[in-house]
Amino acid sequence: MAAPIDFYFDFSSPYGYLAAQKIDALGAKYGRSVNWHPVLLGVIFKETGMAPLTVIPLKGDYSKVDFARSARFHGITDFRMPSKFPIASQAPARIVLWLQARDALLATRVAKALFRAYFVDDIDISNPGLAVAVAAKEGVNPGAARAAIDDPAMKDGLKREVEVAIARGVFGSPFVLVDNEPFWGLDRFEQIERWLATGGF
Amino acid sequence: MAAPIDFYFDFSSPYGYLAAQKIDALGAKYGRSVNWHPVLLGVIFKETGMAPLTVIPLKGDYSKVDFARSARFHGITDFRMPSKFPIASQAPARIVLWLQARDALLATRVAKALFRAYFVDDIDISNPGLAVAVAAKEGVNPGAARAAIDDPAMKDGLKREVEVAIARGVFGSPFVLVDNEPFWGLDRFEQIERWLATGGF
Repeated sequence: MAAPIDFYFDFSSPYGYLAAQKIDALGAKYGRSVNWHPVLLGVIFKETGMAPLTVIPLKGDYSKVDFARSARFHGITDFRMPSKFPIASQAPARIVLWLQARDALLATRVAKALFRAYFVDDIDISNPGLAVAVAAKEGVNPGAARAAIDDPAMKDGLKREVEVAIARGVFGSPFVLVDNEPFWGLDRFEQIERWLATGGF
Repeated sequence: MAAPIDFYFDFSSPYGYLAAQKIDALGAKYGRSVNWHPVLLGVIFKETGMAPLTVIPLKGDYSKVDFARSARFHGITDFRMPSKFPIASQAPARIVLWLQARDALLATRVAKALFRAYFVDDIDISNPGLAVAVAAKEGVNPGAARAAIDDPAMKDGLKREVEVAIARGVFGSPFVLVDNEPFWGLDRFEQIERWLATGGF
């Protein structure tokens, strides 16, 4: 079996949410599993000097039009902009990292549930208690999940994930690496598909 | 006949060049003519606080990979990064604006020739003499084209074009408006096509 695809995302990223609806199926079509990597765009933006899309003049207004239109274009009908945006995503990211060391399939299921909570049900998953409640619905022990958010080992683990991401050139969300070939954005999924189908072009 | 499509671009923009290979055919397929609008990203970036792609840490390196890969993906085989990049695009923009008031078809043909000169033949079209030489090959009077570059009326005309673009929300290149619906980037051409085919989605 070919190497897994690396899927980098921030839980606060609308395009990350949309890509999260597609990436596993895309990988599976070409016999690839997907490694999900939650990262922190806030830390990455300090490296690049970039800013959250929605605060950039002109681009911010456009992005709100494009988030919703891109969701419709991709047939994702249950997207809506959260009332609080952007948010810090340490809490959901640490829960997922902690689960990945225990049960990778459960970790991915919880990641999808956290994304849905934020971008469908407007739940503020930056709040540790609310993030834990989402994970608990997927069968995760809430006390252990809550402890993981404050665990120094998880804090360090997430920091290292972000450092590795930056070292690999990740500057946005979603960001996909296929055999080290970098693809930024949901709008590169067609290029990813051709890359997977042909081995590069 | 339906209203023309507005196609905004900077002559220094690689994605603008790639989009320029596609936009007329896309419009024609849906009975739309295309109004070509050269603008100055340098002026627009002052408004938005953005910077040229290639100078942004991480994103700059990625963009060079993506320019060439996107060209191949779209079957545009004769793209290469110019040795001088980015460039100021006042000279080619003013030539095209000046021609548009005289012969719109010739103006578009010259715009395409200027893009090719820069992104295929590595000619520095920021140089007025070199930009004029490209236009002259398309049958434009070189003395008149050279005079247009320094004509205060053309300078003011280009400034106004950029101001109107900013007022319409244009922040990047390529940027397309279809009946005032905004689309940024070559990677939105599929959404543009669905929009043209369906009247909105």
